Amino acid sequence: MSHTEAMLAYYGDRQVSAQWRDMLRAMADEFDTQLDVHELRALMSRIGERFAQGKPLGACATLDDLELALNRVWTALDWGWAELVDLSEHLAVRHFCAPLDHAFGAKAAVWASAFLEGAYQRWFFDLGAGERLALRQVEPSPVIDVGGVAQPYYEFRLAR
Amino acid sequence: MSHTEAMLAYYGDRQVSAQWRDMLRAMADEFDTQLDVHELRALMSRIGERFAQGKPLGACATLDDLELALNRVWTALDWGWAELVDLSEHLAVRHFCAPLDHAFGAKAAVWASAFLEGAYQRWFFDLGAGERLALRQVEPSPVIDVGGVAQPYYEFRLAR
Amino acid sequence: MSHTEAMLAYYGDRQVSAQWRDMLRAMADEFDTQLDVHELRALMSRIGERFAQGKPLGACATLDDLELALNRVWTALDWGWAELVDLSEHLAVRHFCAPLDHAFGAKAAVWASAFLEGAYQRWFFDLGAGERLALRQVEPSPVIDVGGVAQPYYEFRLAR
Amino acid sequence: MSHTEAMLAYYGDRQVSAQWRDMLRAMADEFDTQLDVHELRALMSRIGERFAQGKPLGACATLDDLELALNRVWTALDWGWAELVDLSEHLAVRHFCAPLDHAFGAKAAVWASAFLEGAYQRWFFDLGAGERLALRQVEPSPVIDVGGVAQPYYEFRLAR
Repeated sequence: MSHTEAMLAYYGDRQVSAQWRDMLRAMADEFDTQLDVHELRALMSRIGERFAQGKPLGACATLDDLELALNRVWTALDWGWAELVDLSEHLAVRHFCAPLDHAFGAKAAVWASAFLEGAYQRWFFDLGAGERLALRQVEPSPVIDVGGVAQPYYEFRLAR
Repeated sequence: MSHTEAMLAYYGDRQVSAQWRDMLRAMADEFDTQLDVHELRALMSRIGERFAQGKPLGACATLDDLELALNRVWTALDWGWAELVDLSEHLAVRHFCAPLDHAFGAKAAVWASAFLEGAYQRWFFDLGAGERLALRQVEPSPVIDVGGVAQPYYEFRLAR
Repeated sequence: MSHTEAMLAYYGDRQVSAQWRDMLRAMADEFDTQLDVHELRALMSRIGERFAQGKPLGACATLDDLELALNRVWTALDWGWAELVDLSEHLAVRHFCAPLDHAFGAKAAVWASAFLEGAYQRWFFDLGAGERLALRQVEPSPVIDVGGVAQPYYEFRLAR
Repeated sequence: MSHTEAMLAYYGDRQVSAQWRDMLRAMADEFDTQLDVHELRALMSRIGERFAQGKPLGACATLDDLELALNRVWTALDWGWAELVDLSEHLAVRHFCAPLDHAFGAKAAVWASAFLEGAYQRWFFDLGAGERLALRQVEPSPVIDVGGVAQPYYEFRLAR
């Protein structure tokens, strides 16, 4: 393992609070035996919605306000950070350094990320995005190349 | 609220890693709408078993060895501590300062504690307790009186 | 040790981030061999002033505003909480559950608490308290009786 | 700032416990006004020695044993990890992901790292390295190139 790999693995693992890492991993393994990916995504999405409901963002006049409000939530919890990118066809939310993969395990990433989808869906809905706008996750997850080591992040697109 | 109450509430809340507190609370609320207490206890017990399976205790010749081995696990995770008490009819495991209530919410305590039941069950089984010995949680949870404020803890009994 | 003592000791110890506990303890022991209590208090007070300077409270119209602003700082860091009490002769600041004793060790409490004195002094000065008003720590530290176990807290008085 | 830079900055900053980050920064700033680099290194080295004294490594028959014992200490505290490299002329200790720079601030790295020097010095002495062997830090700190971003680490050499 190169030092770059070792460093990124170290930081990613240690970001997850040791108090819950093993418990969440056991939970993910149990879930995997009980539900299929579609059901797991639905479950995580509902949990994400509830989470966002408990953390209203307040008024946001601009995308910059919104990004700031989102990152006030994520930063306080050490859940990485979000970037909003206004593409012509849709608004993209890119979420970096979420502790989900390292908490639930790499194979759970495909469903654990629906937690973020549910949370963003809820926040956009509460901001008046309306039901015509749906948030969809880009799959498979895009990656940043960090010195030759692929670091996945999550991207969600809000579109009609 | 008295200062004693404020202090105990503060310590109990802050013990739970902020990274997961709100997520676990949202998870508990979602679970509560989907499953009844009996199903939730069964789920948490299986998760606890998996957790314990991933943390074998090693050889334990005496109850003191066992208590030490258990607390090596709990202390490293900030999950409080266990005391083993050899009553004549059964062995009691008392678990203090587990972060479960403050993580999942007070109303989830009735099922979240099955995580510990599953973990202890597994460890005792692996130590050779055999299938004749079953672990049962004492309900409702006993309490310590701390300056007039009831602090619940969990007790499990191993008996034939 | 009673369960009340064990619980309070557990919570107090675990509140201090394990990452720095042993380093801060070693630092306190080294300081103790180099400086007397008077010099140590002066040093910690200057460090507290710098700390507060980096965390301006913003406008505070009332004591309630001020208490809220102070606790926004302390809560984000898991440094316990402050209560402001308007006695006729002076304003008292009572600080509960500061991690100082458990970080620097019980014998350092007599000087480590000057960190808080410096911080409060600075904040009051920035709010316009003026140089006529000085903050003084009440010594020895008062205690709350929690089920028979004395839990010290810090009190500072702002007076002419 | 590139995403690689943002990610490394995020992980490095968040590794440092929020409870102490601002306090340690204020401490470093105060120290900088009172002592020169030579005095600061001597102070940090003594603190590191005391820290290591409180954490004896136990018997180590091989370099692998020693590396393991060192990393048991560092891992439990989230202080990164050490690698021992047996060069023909000397033994090198390379320490990655120490939280020192992000805690005390980048300009303090030149003296804060003496904490590690003191700790390693003490451990090698206790293992019988004797007084003929001295540990010296390689300066300036070497770096790993992580996707174009220089990530410093610390290297210490044990030689006659």
